[in-house]
Amino acid sequence: MNRVTAVRGQRIAEVRLTPVLVGDPPLLNVQGVHQPYTPRLVVEVVTAEGVAGVGETYGDTSYLELARPYADALIGHDIADLNGLFTRVNEIGVDETRVDHAVDVGGLRGVQTADKLRLSVVSAFEVACLDALGKIQGVPIHTLLGGKVRDEVEYSAYLFYRWAEHPGGAGHKDARGAALDPAGIVEQARRFVDAYGFRSFKLKGGVFPPEQEVAAIRALAAAFPGHPLRLDPNGGWTPETSLRVAGELADVLEYLEDPAPGTAAMAEVSRGTRVPLATNMCVTTFPEIREAFLTDAVQVVLSDHHYWGGLRNTRELAAICRAFGVGLSMHSNTHLGISLAAMTHVAATVPNLDYACDSHYPWTTEDVITARHEFRDGRLTVSDAPGLGVQLDHVELARLHRRWLDDDGTLRDRDDAAAMRRAPEHADWTTPALPRW
Amino acid sequence: MNRVTAVRGQRIAEVRLTPVLVGDPPLLNVQGVHQPYTPRLVVEVVTAEGVAGVGETYGDTSYLELARPYADALIGHDIADLNGLFTRVNEIGVDETRVDHAVDVGGLRGVQTADKLRLSVVSAFEVACLDALGKIQGVPIHTLLGGKVRDEVEYSAYLFYRWAEHPGGAGHKDARGAALDPAGIVEQARRFVDAYGFRSFKLKGGVFPPEQEVAAIRALAAAFPGHPLRLDPNGGWTPETSLRVAGELADVLEYLEDPAPGTAAMAEVSRGTRVPLATNMCVTTFPEIREAFLTDAVQVVLSDHHYWGGLRNTRELAAICRAFGVGLSMHSNTHLGISLAAMTHVAATVPNLDYACDSHYPWTTEDVITARHEFRDGRLTVSDAPGLGVQLDHVELARLHRRWLDDDGTLRDRDDAAAMRRAPEHADWTTPALPRW
Ligand SMILES: [Mg+2]
Ligand SMILES: [Mg+2]
Repeated sequence: MNRVTAVRGQRIAEVRLTPVLVGDPPLLNVQGVHQPYTPRLVVEVVTAEGVAGVGETYGDTSYLELARPYADALIGHDIADLNGLFTRVNEIGVDETRVDHAVDVGGLRGVQTADKLRLSVVSAFEVACLDALGKIQGVPIHTLLGGKVRDEVEYSAYLFYRWAEHPGGAGHKDARGAALDPAGIVEQARRFVDAYGFRSFKLKGGVFPPEQEVAAIRALAAAFPGHPLRLDPNGGWTPETSLRVAGELADVLEYLEDPAPGTAAMAEVSRGTRVPLATNMCVTTFPEIREAFLTDAVQVVLSDHHYWGGLRNTRELAAICRAFGVGLSMHSNTHLGISLAAMTHVAATVPNLDYACDSHYPWTTEDVITARHEFRDGRLTVSDAPGLGVQLDHVELARLHRRWLDDDGTLRDRDDAAAMRRAPEHADWTTPALPRW
Repeated sequence: MNRVTAVRGQRIAEVRLTPVLVGDPPLLNVQGVHQPYTPRLVVEVVTAEGVAGVGETYGDTSYLELARPYADALIGHDIADLNGLFTRVNEIGVDETRVDHAVDVGGLRGVQTADKLRLSVVSAFEVACLDALGKIQGVPIHTLLGGKVRDEVEYSAYLFYRWAEHPGGAGHKDARGAALDPAGIVEQARRFVDAYGFRSFKLKGGVFPPEQEVAAIRALAAAFPGHPLRLDPNGGWTPETSLRVAGELADVLEYLEDPAPGTAAMAEVSRGTRVPLATNMCVTTFPEIREAFLTDAVQVVLSDHHYWGGLRNTRELAAICRAFGVGLSMHSNTHLGISLAAMTHVAATVPNLDYACDSHYPWTTEDVITARHEFRDGRLTVSDAPGLGVQLDHVELARLHRRWLDDDGTLRDRDDAAAMRRAPEHADWTTPALPRW
């Protein structure tokens, strides 16, 4: 019953894996600060007929160590056999001792597991296969997902407390300046609105004591009355603190994102407030859904195709949320234009995408595609070009890969706490135990 | 945000709707008996380039009344815009006064609603679009669903209490004879095994007092030791009766299907037995899932692409069941070979199809495809031909449509109670109130 015979179709003849380091500003979060460069992995699949597709995922070592044997295993794989991508990845052993069970690298999505690693690696290959399939058929990826239900996808302004520069002046410099208080956050928001037209705002919290972050949200509410606001301390607060903040900001918050760590704590908060709770930490895999939904711990799930195993799994998550009356939004880590294209395609096909999506994209001035995506009125137009609708810039790809090759290993694994310690005034920094406040 | 522009692709230029009446034996259930002929609707979509795709659904008047304006609305629709099929159908008004809110025609799936009608109509069009898309791309439908994960799909023997002939000798006659007691059911099972190789057995119950049906299951267990057995009284029993039967048959039942009517009653039964409960009555739409899963009312959901709105929605149902640790099997009403092909394609792609599927197909000797499906060892081989892999037999289609045209309206709407009353000894029959025992 489990033997599967082949059907005609283009087969994968070559897979190119290109780890890169991408310039990233010194954005602060509960764990520390972003490194000067963030590792990403660019995946290219090429069929025997010469059609290429591209995808993108995390580039940390543990992902690379899985992606390499997986790429080998996929030589000869039918490009259309997307369900088979999961069968194949489950056949690749993951050295559990290499999995950082304490915390997900860069993801802030609960403990790392081998299954999460596998799904994140699959996501890049699935997008690459869809890109190639779309090119073969002459249709955009949204058509392969059943067709877009909207022509534009709305994104939110993703605001961060940040330093002006990385410690020691490392990495790229930008002219956006520091943002370490309410006035700085409002100024940052103003720049984002002027440049991209975003209408809703999310502040990455968990950086300062809660009252300072409440003040920043209040300042945003005053500066942009009526605009949807979100605050995400990444599980940095106790349920008591969470409920206090929820009470103080109930009139202006669209949702409160992961105020407390874990499903049980989120359920406790949920019972005490009518502010919707969103998560990309306690519900990041299908097995985590049941408990969270049974206990009404979250009212919004932030999808992320890198977490959930690709665009089709993201649509399944959306179907589950729809059936249970749970809202859907979209999470983002630092990413390139390949993933933004993928996010936009899937978002265009989901009827119940209830909120503007998150994206780090405006923070990342480097890219590996020939034409950067441009937000207009806070939105991206859904591409109708075949596949993803992006073209790899091989010169830029080689340049960012050279940076990865030249790195001595310091930055190949994202470590926001280590990055924090490079600031002399935080030399003793360790990742705070959660909840911190 | 809701304007949707077109992408290139083949568009629907013509839709042919062909209602037919299909010969059906006098199979008994809790509502009465099958009519001599059952209405089905064959849907053909044809693109401007001349590619045709075919689908099948219920043929009762209320379905036809929705399918006709829907077909008109789909002229010019991109054949690949499967998500748009739902948008379009929701724009078609359904005369709620024409919906039989008391009971679903032939479906035994709770009360009829406009939404259920819409999804059942969409299902035929979605399959037809997938058939055409597969032909255009030269790939089987399972590839359009992401790829098969098995080469064969297992079906169960669907056993019925039945009369030898329809009242007055109406309709077709077959040589299979009556089955009205345990010995008759065992003989029927033996014939099915000899002809098709089925390994598991489902008995449609709710016909006789529960102890007689328990005796039939016991006779099957004795005749086919170790084979999976199922009993489905279609909500005919009280929770007390259900628990008594579950206790008596706990050692031989694979699952007990809809013993009691409604989610609350099923939950009550579930709390009192470890026999898994299956349903195609209290969970037949996405909004019904939440309560049933929260109360652990069912451990197995029987999917049915005619209920859920097509093959892609069936996969979404499967994803929900997977996430919640609920089993998945497949329901069947009387259907033709078009739907059996569709059932087999989607079943081939679902990793968590935990049980052999139901199918009425062996009871239906008439078909509108050129080559009947053949069960071997209780299984169907998944077709790798483009699209569904079936060809319409236009001569047979015309013959069965002529029967529908010639009908005076008596059989155009399935009514098992009216069919029962045609037997002189049941002239006073009315659909029993549930639970009956
Ligand atoms: Mg978050
Ligand atoms: Mg049933």
